[in-house]
Amino acid sequence: MSLTIPLPDWLESVNRSHLVFPDTAAVMAFVIELSRRNISDGGGPFAAAICSESLELVAAGVNRVVPAQASILHAEMLALLLAQQKLGTHDLSAVGRFVLVTSCAPCAMCLGAIPWSGVATVVCGAREEDAAAIGFDEGDKPVAWQDKLRSRAIQVEEDVCRQQAMAVLQAYTEQGGGLY
Amino acid sequence: MSLTIPLPDWLESVNRSHLVFPDTAAVMAFVIELSRRNISDGGGPFAAAICSESLELVAAGVNRVVPAQASILHAEMLALLLAQQKLGTHDLSAVGRFVLVTSCAPCAMCLGAIPWSGVATVVCGAREEDAAAIGFDEGDKPVAWQDKLRSRAIQVEEDVCRQQAMAVLQAYTEQGGGLY
Repeated sequence: MSLTIPLPDWLESVNRSHLVFPDTAAVMAFVIELSRRNISDGGGPFAAAICSESLELVAAGVNRVVPAQASILHAEMLALLLAQQKLGTHDLSAVGRFVLVTSCAPCAMCLGAIPWSGVATVVCGAREEDAAAIGFDEGDKPVAWQDKLRSRAIQVEEDVCRQQAMAVLQAYTEQGGGLY
Repeated sequence: MSLTIPLPDWLESVNRSHLVFPDTAAVMAFVIELSRRNISDGGGPFAAAICSESLELVAAGVNRVVPAQASILHAEMLALLLAQQKLGTHDLSAVGRFVLVTSCAPCAMCLGAIPWSGVATVVCGAREEDAAAIGFDEGDKPVAWQDKLRSRAIQVEEDVCRQQAMAVLQAYTEQGGGLY
């Protein structure tokens, strides 16, 4: 038995490419572009990527909640799933130091998933209030969640290309994109 | 492109069965049995099921983190994935009122996933401190998480067959099962 989740072909192309970025802002610009691309393919306005410490792409994910009929398929979750399948481990920390770059600060579910994934660093574009401003619920997160991650030795960097990330959220709303 | 997650054949058999339970304790007893079965197949000591309001099984899931190389594949997450695929929607509340029955109180990630899934009720066996007692980390959950769910109109029932659920956790430890 297996569970098969359909994903867009363009995401496969991206994930087969060999991409190395000069800095986390460049990863974020790439991720934000994926979030924009995803909207035009029926997905939500969110994307994420897992990179090695030297900023080589391992896997990118996008929000496929509605098209894949799966409420857990947020961008961060799909990026983690694809990265772990590619590297053959449920614990990324067992094989290196990895960075999760996400176009928007994680919701309560994705935040809870981060410590289990073994990533060493989380880099966020838009803030949770930016997602909330267009009507997306971020869930009940612990107060000072950034400090909770840091207490688990997971670094957190925020507001990277925040304006560009917000622009995609805004574009989604203007196109009448559904909320969930 | 698609993402394929391998699952055990016995789980497929269970999910193809037509099962209707007399009460939530009977669902829990079934779920606890799956959690025990899962240990002998390389999985973690956790299982969950989604049932309709009339307690007909929609889908059961078990913890496949290590064998499927996927840190997000907790029992609750897999049960939600399978139930939503079966019913063809990312939002279970769009097609009825559903119950999530889990052998152990949800970790931070699964707790965060619950409001997005559309389930109406959550029924828990073992408590988070029972999982913590054998070394499993439940993550940083909001204080009074049960009240947070209730404020979203999601009912919470706890300690259903708690002793039987704890016995499986204990058996897992005695067999030297790994923690993650």
